[in-house]
Amino acid sequence: MYNLLKGKRGIIFGALDENSIAWKTAERVHEEGGTFVLTNAPIAMRMGTIDVLAQKTGSQIIPADATSLEDLENLVDQAVEILGGKIDFVLHSIGMSVNVRKNINYTDNKYDFTQKGWDVSAVSFHKVMQVLYKKDAMSEWGSIIALTYMAAQRVFPDYNDMADNKAYLESIARSFGYFFGKDKKVRVNTISQSPTATTAGQGVKGFSGFIAYADKMSPLGNATAGECADYVVTMFSDLTKKVTLQNLYHDGGFSNMGVSQEVMEAFERGLEEEN
Amino acid sequence: MYNLLKGKRGIIFGALDENSIAWKTAERVHEEGGTFVLTNAPIAMRMGTIDVLAQKTGSQIIPADATSLEDLENLVDQAVEILGGKIDFVLHSIGMSVNVRKNINYTDNKYDFTQKGWDVSAVSFHKVMQVLYKKDAMSEWGSIIALTYMAAQRVFPDYNDMADNKAYLESIARSFGYFFGKDKKVRVNTISQSPTATTAGQGVKGFSGFIAYADKMSPLGNATAGECADYVVTMFSDLTKKVTLQNLYHDGGFSNMGVSQEVMEAFERGLEEEN
Amino acid sequence: MYNLLKGKRGIIFGALDENSIAWKTAERVHEEGGTFVLTNAPIAMRMGTIDVLAQKTGSQIIPADATSLEDLENLVDQAVEILGGKIDFVLHSIGMSVNVRKNINYTDNKYDFTQKGWDVSAVSFHKVMQVLYKKDAMSEWGSIIALTYMAAQRVFPDYNDMADNKAYLESIARSFGYFFGKDKKVRVNTISQSPTATTAGQGVKGFSGFIAYADKMSPLGNATAGECADYVVTMFSDLTKKVTLQNLYHDGGFSNMGVSQEVMEAFERGLEEEN
Amino acid sequence: MYNLLKGKRGIIFGALDENSIAWKTAERVHEEGGTFVLTNAPIAMRMGTIDVLAQKTGSQIIPADATSLEDLENLVDQAVEILGGKIDFVLHSIGMSVNVRKNINYTDNKYDFTQKGWDVSAVSFHKVMQVLYKKDAMSEWGSIIALTYMAAQRVFPDYNDMADNKAYLESIARSFGYFFGKDKKVRVNTISQSPTATTAGQGVKGFSGFIAYADKMSPLGNATAGECADYVVTMFSDLTKKVTLQNLYHDGGFSNMGVSQEVMEAFERGLEEEN
Repeated sequence: MYNLLKGKRGIIFGALDENSIAWKTAERVHEEGGTFVLTNAPIAMRMGTIDVLAQKTGSQIIPADATSLEDLENLVDQAVEILGGKIDFVLHSIGMSVNVRKNINYTDNKYDFTQKGWDVSAVSFHKVMQVLYKKDAMSEWGSIIALTYMAAQRVFPDYNDMADNKAYLESIARSFGYFFGKDKKVRVNTISQSPTATTAGQGVKGFSGFIAYADKMSPLGNATAGECADYVVTMFSDLTKKVTLQNLYHDGGFSNMGVSQEVMEAFERGLEEEN
Repeated sequence: MYNLLKGKRGIIFGALDENSIAWKTAERVHEEGGTFVLTNAPIAMRMGTIDVLAQKTGSQIIPADATSLEDLENLVDQAVEILGGKIDFVLHSIGMSVNVRKNINYTDNKYDFTQKGWDVSAVSFHKVMQVLYKKDAMSEWGSIIALTYMAAQRVFPDYNDMADNKAYLESIARSFGYFFGKDKKVRVNTISQSPTATTAGQGVKGFSGFIAYADKMSPLGNATAGECADYVVTMFSDLTKKVTLQNLYHDGGFSNMGVSQEVMEAFERGLEEEN
Repeated sequence: MYNLLKGKRGIIFGALDENSIAWKTAERVHEEGGTFVLTNAPIAMRMGTIDVLAQKTGSQIIPADATSLEDLENLVDQAVEILGGKIDFVLHSIGMSVNVRKNINYTDNKYDFTQKGWDVSAVSFHKVMQVLYKKDAMSEWGSIIALTYMAAQRVFPDYNDMADNKAYLESIARSFGYFFGKDKKVRVNTISQSPTATTAGQGVKGFSGFIAYADKMSPLGNATAGECADYVVTMFSDLTKKVTLQNLYHDGGFSNMGVSQEVMEAFERGLEEEN
Repeated sequence: MYNLLKGKRGIIFGALDENSIAWKTAERVHEEGGTFVLTNAPIAMRMGTIDVLAQKTGSQIIPADATSLEDLENLVDQAVEILGGKIDFVLHSIGMSVNVRKNINYTDNKYDFTQKGWDVSAVSFHKVMQVLYKKDAMSEWGSIIALTYMAAQRVFPDYNDMADNKAYLESIARSFGYFFGKDKKVRVNTISQSPTATTAGQGVKGFSGFIAYADKMSPLGNATAGECADYVVTMFSDLTKKVTLQNLYHDGGFSNMGVSQEVMEAFERGLEEEN
């Protein structure tokens, strides 16, 4: 709509289906004139409908397991070749906890599962950046974004070990962002999004109640996947060149709320009813 | 009980009645071997029962309007004389908003009232420290504490302009704490306490509901005034000499919660009932 | 360049001369298709060259003392009339400390000066919003921004009482932002900008050294006034509708740095030289 | 000295030699009347002198690899038996990065090493708490502390992947602290200590320069290992029962500094010299 990303090339991780934030972002980036390759884990691709998105946006799909350096090296090499130049933007939208999937309470986590989730959800972001950095594949003033959630700062009991993974992910953004900034003039940030009814999010226990809670707490209500895509576009554009190492809340104001009047009223009604 | 404050001298602001955190702190400091003068605004003294506390702890009362430099200079001079030496600890427990008292919504605040509350609740802390600093009245490794509330960081709608006053107060703690640390080796911190059923706190609209909310949200429940007094004792002791410029949450964990299971359950019950 | 603000109407406070962030913002908003009125205090207008900016951007100037409700009411009424509809964006770029101007150390602040600076630098933001709120003069999904500085969170000794004013300002953004969000669907944020060589900034003691320090610390170097204008444009656009109550660092990464290699090296050289 | 921990039983991890914070803590806990078992990894025990500490404090040593659930289960069982009851306090002072040891730059990290460091430095804290929780081995109002460093929040380039490990560790403290609080009334916190000249710390590149930098930045100078031990004692005592889920800075004020006058002066001298 604004040509904000005209001529920019990128890689978008994690578009599963049309509910995905990555999917919406791909659509919006396409509208803004950006070109990109789509990538996802082979297993995720089988479950989703990424082909539709590729066709719609004129993009190629390069499968890659984001925990595999080899796959990532191949991905970056191909992306640069297909797109015809260095990369300007990257979206990392990857997260998975085996402990969550198997309904294992946080106090009972199995450490093999913990490690798997950490590797997929957090270390993959380091790997992506390491490959881009070593291959010198990012353009100056390029922009790298990972999606995260506020459980990295505050306790949401059902979010389980994903909270710790997101804290690690956000730390990688700062740690790697320093070197990417100093050495390559590339910015690295995370966006901390409202709980969003993606296909992945729906797996979390008690998710619909939690979405209502966040919505009533936030002065502007929850941010949608589409609104998140808009925000990502601004962060990929040339208008935000000096924003780096930040964790940016895109959440209708939730993160700075103590309590809203609506939540307080529902809480008090619920408390009375209990008694 | 432990003699943690044996030989230490201090000034305690804001003990109104036996519900006050300052009152509980005075009792605990006395038990730990500290000596102090009590002070409060003349008008607050008429409403409260501070004489009982003075008698119980063997303390003298020196009335002072904490917005008056003249009163504060007199207070500090007398305190040093009465206690027989420089001051080791100070508790600032002062807060008042005319907008809150008059039930004026935040969006409708009257600025004369705003200024009065700011002067009493926040600037008074600067004045207290300026007088102590200029008179060189603090001992090395002395400890200055002001009580605050998390509304300085996050929105609690009924807390009104006290939120802004507390943000200013906490900033003073950092700004003055730098100079007091570098120049006099004195530490300055704020303690951000759970909502507490003091006589002052009870004036806030919807306070009892809010206390229940905070209590259900906090993994350890709300911190009481007596527990806060215990915590203040540790911050006045020699065991915390290198803690400075900090805002310390004493709140049963509230500050780092996104949502607890109990709050979520009450919220969902309340939401259903509404529909 | 992108038509990001086509059809949007606004008020821009604080454009003094071509070094001002507000000046650069006005230029960029104009390029993006927005229309606005410019305003400044009568005294600031005499010192600056705002007429040049008005002519360049086809804007009218409405003088207003931002501490005067009467002036602000007149400003908002005229702005709505001149621009032909409700307001979509507001930039508050106002700050002044008499203690700083008179080189009074923080520990020696004069409280009349403290109050004056607080009223101009912080309370003015509440007044602006109160007038807009009461007159229902903001469009839905409008965006209000105030400029701030990281001294609100961390100590920069020469920043003096402006640190406390900025802490209060940021608290107002959260407190008023809640009501403006819930009641009017308007977002309110602050942007915490790198130290910038504006005409106002140059008055701060040791400013040039500090700019060098911030520049060497920040992985991407300091953000300029022009880059800040770009960032403000994104925050005024429809692409950031769900960002509210936030303090957004636009600082090349400074805010999340502990120490950079370059600062460490200069520090160590300086330390050796001293010995 | 004060009998603050009379009758309390604990487990202290990570006392290597007399420079260790854990060593100093063991000494101070002993002075305050607490009893405890000491534990360390078999390999660390061979390098250190923990026997001396055990003798001095009348404690038994139980070797345990903190990444092994089996070892931890044995440790907790034996500790309860030896000490004659449930555990009141735990100190986790464990950290190690293979990438740091091998001088591998952050952008070049080897992921096997990353995983090893994460498991030892961060996941071990989850494992310790899981074993204590499942065995119901903590007393009500018990206190669990892990040592951390501010690199979890801000970038210190040489701190390498330990920054990310500490971010994960601090997240575990919040996540597990919620359940330990709700279910067992146990508090969990991290202490973020000044850079300290421990035997472990000395391995970090450029450490002595960094200690000087932190010392000049902090209004009260760096906190020593002994002062940290004092602070840990307060957090183990009954006086801090309602402090939980917190990351507590014990750093002479460093964490809330933007820049100090002394650092600024050394920086400017160093910058001039360069030119």
